[in-house]
Amino acid sequence: MDSIFSDRIADVPRSFIREILKVSLDPTIISFAGGLPNREFFPVAELKTATAKVFDTMGRDVLQYSMSEGFTGLREMIARRYHDRQNLDIPVENILITNGSQQGLDLMGKTFINEGDDIVIEEPAYLGAIQAFSLFKPRFNPVKLTEEGLDIRQFKSVMSARKPKLIYSVPNFQNPSGISFSERTRREMAGIIEGTSTLLIEDDPYGDLRYSGTDKPSFMAILPKNTILFGSFSKTISPGLRIGWIVAPHDIMEKLIVAKQAADLHTTHFTQCILWQYMRDNDIDAHIRKIKECYGRQMQAMLNSIEKYFPQGVSHTTPEGGMFLWVTLPEGTSSRDLLDRALKDKVIFVPGDPFYVNRQNTNTLRLNFSCTDEPTIDTGIRNLGKAMKQLLKK
Amino acid sequence: MDSIFSDRIADVPRSFIREILKVSLDPTIISFAGGLPNREFFPVAELKTATAKVFDTMGRDVLQYSMSEGFTGLREMIARRYHDRQNLDIPVENILITNGSQQGLDLMGKTFINEGDDIVIEEPAYLGAIQAFSLFKPRFNPVKLTEEGLDIRQFKSVMSARKPKLIYSVPNFQNPSGISFSERTRREMAGIIEGTSTLLIEDDPYGDLRYSGTDKPSFMAILPKNTILFGSFSKTISPGLRIGWIVAPHDIMEKLIVAKQAADLHTTHFTQCILWQYMRDNDIDAHIRKIKECYGRQMQAMLNSIEKYFPQGVSHTTPEGGMFLWVTLPEGTSSRDLLDRALKDKVIFVPGDPFYVNRQNTNTLRLNFSCTDEPTIDTGIRNLGKAMKQLLKK
Repeated sequence: MDSIFSDRIADVPRSFIREILKVSLDPTIISFAGGLPNREFFPVAELKTATAKVFDTMGRDVLQYSMSEGFTGLREMIARRYHDRQNLDIPVENILITNGSQQGLDLMGKTFINEGDDIVIEEPAYLGAIQAFSLFKPRFNPVKLTEEGLDIRQFKSVMSARKPKLIYSVPNFQNPSGISFSERTRREMAGIIEGTSTLLIEDDPYGDLRYSGTDKPSFMAILPKNTILFGSFSKTISPGLRIGWIVAPHDIMEKLIVAKQAADLHTTHFTQCILWQYMRDNDIDAHIRKIKECYGRQMQAMLNSIEKYFPQGVSHTTPEGGMFLWVTLPEGTSSRDLLDRALKDKVIFVPGDPFYVNRQNTNTLRLNFSCTDEPTIDTGIRNLGKAMKQLLKK
Repeated sequence: MDSIFSDRIADVPRSFIREILKVSLDPTIISFAGGLPNREFFPVAELKTATAKVFDTMGRDVLQYSMSEGFTGLREMIARRYHDRQNLDIPVENILITNGSQQGLDLMGKTFINEGDDIVIEEPAYLGAIQAFSLFKPRFNPVKLTEEGLDIRQFKSVMSARKPKLIYSVPNFQNPSGISFSERTRREMAGIIEGTSTLLIEDDPYGDLRYSGTDKPSFMAILPKNTILFGSFSKTISPGLRIGWIVAPHDIMEKLIVAKQAADLHTTHFTQCILWQYMRDNDIDAHIRKIKECYGRQMQAMLNSIEKYFPQGVSHTTPEGGMFLWVTLPEGTSSRDLLDRALKDKVIFVPGDPFYVNRQNTNTLRLNFSCTDEPTIDTGIRNLGKAMKQLLKK
């Protein structure tokens, strides 16, 4: 039967997470499934004040069509933050504002991927990246994540066998695994990539959310010629404003702007100006410290409860930041079966499957700790541990 | 030389208009080049009030991640307007909110176009559609516009020879030509399309802006099975908020939502709620009447000045609405040459070239009348007439 649809749309995995999130609307269910920042930290009053100011000072401008590159004031602020926090000198012209990082993935796919092109992703990988890239029909080369980052031996062999066009990586507090790349892994990867024409997309939405350990150098610092850096305000200020950005060199930026124009002309000028005004009038670092203090506590609570309640043979990552940790059940166990059981005990999570390309009934799962308070975390993890024990007994 | 970029990005025409708009920043230049709505009509105070209410009543919700389909309240309002104004019954589930209509084009390209697929566009066509579709490497089949709409004979022959997957059309006050399709052309087209698997994208950003004549039935009314309808608030309330929508049947909507998720997860919930609140608290039809009264007057002023100043042999369309009219110079004359001359007389417009696929040095040009007051229109058209006379004398 001939389909009226394009071949590419058939290749995009359905969002399994969407389905799970529907279940999580039931208020009696404890959800570790979401990927949402905690809404208690949205600076509603401050954004309201900033918005009123924007209307008063730039009313007509922010309601008109605007530049595809994004609002210069906001791009200058982003550049300044890179300078102040990471000692990175990024020209404003090298920053393109996007509708969250998700759009950055789409623009990169459009600009670089021909059908069948090799790209490297992490295993497990951020689901939204698999979805976005799938539309351009690349050949995915998943490289295993260890607690130190990409498995260097496997990475080296894929690089030499495939000469991939793109590598997609979330080196800080990765979604879904919570893993951060060690400095050694970063430098080894940089050494392997340097001098090739492979581009590395360094997606860094969680970089600001570190609860322990020390910052590692970004790929933009140690491998500037091959790195395209993504950032976002979604995890620190508000995801609903849909503001992220891409840092790329001039020749690539030119093409990305063409792709951005074709995609939606430009990101809402209005919301960019609100963020800019908010950051002018408020101490965003003080705001981020509050978030970190809370998420860090909740992560620790989850780790403590896991130690108490999870059975032998179940392992997990120990993140230094971000919003997630990653659990591995004994070989041969399916986390989907666990979900069926856990649902009866009113606790849910995201099974590992959607974070892999073409793998099913995996024995892994993602737990989110940003949206649940400590007593609820303890109850939820206890119930999940109970479900695990039942599953493993069988 | 091997390019690191995808093949598709090389096929996207650069936006010539962007370049011209840079010139138009010079305040001594009279610009008929823009495609912008008149900023004087942005309801700044009302939107400010609506926004404050949104913060007070839905603050945390609008700042969180949200549904890919868009805000239900706004979609209900759009459905109600179709019912009230056009007697169209559109289920809310068949409406997807996009970042302006431009994103609708991108999602349609993603969802339907395989490389080499035949698509029909108008000649001249909306530049943004050529850009958006180009990324998916279709074969464009331009069909000439007459004052009645698509040239039916040519359309019929393309339909039977190519069996195109998509037709892209702006039947009301088209950009760039200002032409509206007669009811007869619409019904003839519907008769030719009906029973085929060809889909017609009915893009209707200007439909509300009629200054004379009577509304014609939409394709959604006379060809519902084959029509996908686009709408937008950009020309009536504010383009900067970047809110448009797609109306499509259930099976297509499912795929479009997957494409929307991959593109940017969802359109800003915040701006959708602002529009919803604004439309609840204000009479949008009274607002649109004010815009129509002004644009209609300015269009008439432009037509009057054209009669006075343009030389023999130069023809033009006589729109019944929208923001543009279309001028044709004598055969063998280039509107780019005219632009060089007109720049010296401090008046600019968009030459026809970018509105065609693969045609250069065309003898056509687009004039915008929404952003210039009547005395300035008279001065600008007088200077443009002078430049035409010099060009034709040569």
